[in-house]
Amino acid sequence: MTFTHTRTVRIEWGDCDPAGIIFYPTYFRIFDNATAALFERALGMTKYQYLKTYDFAGFPLVDTRAKFLKPTRFGDDVTVESAITFGTSSFTVQHRVMLKGELCAECTEKRVWVVRDANGRIRSEPVPQKVLERFSIQ
Amino acid sequence: MTFTHTRTVRIEWGDCDPAGIIFYPTYFRIFDNATAALFERALGMTKYQYLKTYDFAGFPLVDTRAKFLKPTRFGDDVTVESAITFGTSSFTVQHRVMLKGELCAECTEKRVWVVRDANGRIRSEPVPQKVLERFSIQ
Amino acid sequence: MTFTHTRTVRIEWGDCDPAGIIFYPTYFRIFDNATAALFERALGMTKYQYLKTYDFAGFPLVDTRAKFLKPTRFGDDVTVESAITFGTSSFTVQHRVMLKGELCAECTEKRVWVVRDANGRIRSEPVPQKVLERFSIQ
Amino acid sequence: MTFTHTRTVRIEWGDCDPAGIIFYPTYFRIFDNATAALFERALGMTKYQYLKTYDFAGFPLVDTRAKFLKPTRFGDDVTVESAITFGTSSFTVQHRVMLKGELCAECTEKRVWVVRDANGRIRSEPVPQKVLERFSIQ
Repeated sequence: MTFTHTRTVRIEWGDCDPAGIIFYPTYFRIFDNATAALFERALGMTKYQYLKTYDFAGFPLVDTRAKFLKPTRFGDDVTVESAITFGTSSFTVQHRVMLKGELCAECTEKRVWVVRDANGRIRSEPVPQKVLERFSIQ
Repeated sequence: MTFTHTRTVRIEWGDCDPAGIIFYPTYFRIFDNATAALFERALGMTKYQYLKTYDFAGFPLVDTRAKFLKPTRFGDDVTVESAITFGTSSFTVQHRVMLKGELCAECTEKRVWVVRDANGRIRSEPVPQKVLERFSIQ
Repeated sequence: MTFTHTRTVRIEWGDCDPAGIIFYPTYFRIFDNATAALFERALGMTKYQYLKTYDFAGFPLVDTRAKFLKPTRFGDDVTVESAITFGTSSFTVQHRVMLKGELCAECTEKRVWVVRDANGRIRSEPVPQKVLERFSIQ
Repeated sequence: MTFTHTRTVRIEWGDCDPAGIIFYPTYFRIFDNATAALFERALGMTKYQYLKTYDFAGFPLVDTRAKFLKPTRFGDDVTVESAITFGTSSFTVQHRVMLKGELCAECTEKRVWVVRDANGRIRSEPVPQKVLERFSIQ
């Protein structure tokens, strides 16, 4: 089961460094926002709402691999295509950043579904069936 | 002469701090983006393009005052209203951040129009007449 | 009663924008860090620890005024001098950013001492006497 | 030939997200700063100076892989150990983030040495022999 979501993101002046191109940690902000947006799309509510509704503590990143192929710069409106595949307590999101039909960056994220225990510590837990259903029916 | 521009901005998870509300330096990124967008609207081109077209080095901030009245948090779609007034070599932008009709933050920025001299140093210069015209005719 | 603290901060490549100078929202990160460090110095523990020890929710900024006089850039090691003055439920911090003896930026912050009520909402409360004592005895 | 550098970095309040732990894009800022510091250590000058001295446009990241094993949070002073290995026009940096003897995050970066051509475009070029020598003699 793969669920996809595409959005447009403007690269801003302050996202770039003295070389005039995007400062690469900005891409990871963009990827984090894209993953949140993908869940928002599937679950029909914002991250603030779905953390409460499904009573979990988030989906921290545990492993990521990214390639930066062509620089982007302020004023560019890039397309970010995100595709998610679920495991049991984890999921993988693949992001592709496109500009005028060309692939500029790509990233694979592995994230874990976590809840907070009685001591406030986070631990992984299976992604709830109700969440999985929202991703499959669309 | 006052020119205004309004846009919607999503407050993201990574824009917030451990208190769960927006980390206030994020607001200044939002204000900087809003000022760039206001010029983009008036000049009909992106910042990358207008820096080249009007051959200047930017409009660095020299003085700012901001008040934060109500916290916003991730998932909020705030409205940012920006109004610009020109001096000779400088201009003032007033930003208001609204959420559901309530004022959450406001900011006044004073910025200077600068060019780069032969030694690569920046110095202020009057805002070109062609730029002023673009702001008045709309 | 005024308590002061001085620290050195490196301006990094990623703190700067395509003009090659510091992106001004970075200054507000620096000021926020400096205020946290000032409390760490006075209270003898990190922010993580003092939020727990004194059982409060933080000191959100409500009003700030900053002037940027000379640009700094990556590789600069600036000195940040911070001075705090207490009101009842609020305090004011004045920051000065110096480079080689020259004033580059200055900022006045007004912040409020807040606690979280039973509903999770934040509200202001007088700064505890035990906190004030730590600032006066040093 | 491997050259290493170790530094301590404070995780700040504003580096963390509403889960109270480091917002992972912050790690990439830390890694970028650590690579710049490693060159500063080997070349005996800041990035601002070495970009001029060796007349190049930087070392953009082309490929990165990171694993996040244990969360860190504000107030933590982490140790960042960085080791560099050179290819011809590229180099690899491995970063390890340690807290109290435990590995919290690790990252491998592949970066390319670039210069700017007559049209302002960047292209890769062999790392200068003078730079390599500075890394081998220490």
